[in-house]
Amino acid sequence: MTEHSLWRFSRALHRAINERQHEDLAALLDDDVEWAIYGPIDMFPFLGARHGKSAVLEVIRQIADNIRVHRFDRETIMLGVDSAASMLRYSLTLLDSNKPISLRVAHFAQFKAGKLASIRVLVDTFDLVEQALGRHIHLPRISTVA
Amino acid sequence: MTEHSLWRFSRALHRAINERQHEDLAALLDDDVEWAIYGPIDMFPFLGARHGKSAVLEVIRQIADNIRVHRFDRETIMLGVDSAASMLRYSLTLLDSNKPISLRVAHFAQFKAGKLASIRVLVDTFDLVEQALGRHIHLPRISTVA
Repeated sequence: MTEHSLWRFSRALHRAINERQHEDLAALLDDDVEWAIYGPIDMFPFLGARHGKSAVLEVIRQIADNIRVHRFDRETIMLGVDSAASMLRYSLTLLDSNKPISLRVAHFAQFKAGKLASIRVLVDTFDLVEQALGRHIHLPRISTVA
Repeated sequence: MTEHSLWRFSRALHRAINERQHEDLAALLDDDVEWAIYGPIDMFPFLGARHGKSAVLEVIRQIADNIRVHRFDRETIMLGVDSAASMLRYSLTLLDSNKPISLRVAHFAQFKAGKLASIRVLVDTFDLVEQALGRHIHLPRISTVA
């Protein structure tokens, strides 16, 4: 039984971010790869959508310039033949401020011939923003609950 | 082929939220169901974790008091025998302020004997907060990208 494409991609992605080794990752990206990490691009210009291998490699270089991943724990995972989804908790550091961030993330990935064809990543962005700012944002209570 | 548990649960959930019909939903919740929608509970007390059927039915009543779902589009879905994950876009209204909200959501669900045993929901919370406030929150740029 061959290894699921997710594991190869995950190893290559984290090596690209933490060690700036992009060769393995480049070989695992489809030329037309669709990439999206939804979040506030004003604060984090390396979030958002990218299309195509070179744009994705470039954004991963930007991510590597800004964060270091310390660990991630997969809380839930679903694997299909050419697809994968998981919910993870990441521990990372924002290099600019040296701030530790603990963050919940969900991704949905599609592979084609073993290469990443699309990935969409959802992040608990308010939690991310508060940790990156290093302060609580006061919110009014919006609820009819007593 | 029997219908996947996700479809029954999804119909019952939306009926409970929009029409306050809780009977179908109650029959589809495991007694020990684990429920979590990650997000700022200061602003939205009906987010957060709940355990057990009665706590989940109560929080769904609170959700029904606060939002109305207009539509949802499943962008991605993965189905396992007793599990399901999807990424969706919701169009809803916050009843308190009559504000329309468009929101991306990911969920991971586990079923046991056709009943919901656990669900964990991740929301693009910063986007949610800004729409609920009705204004842009200014964020500094945190990035070494030029």
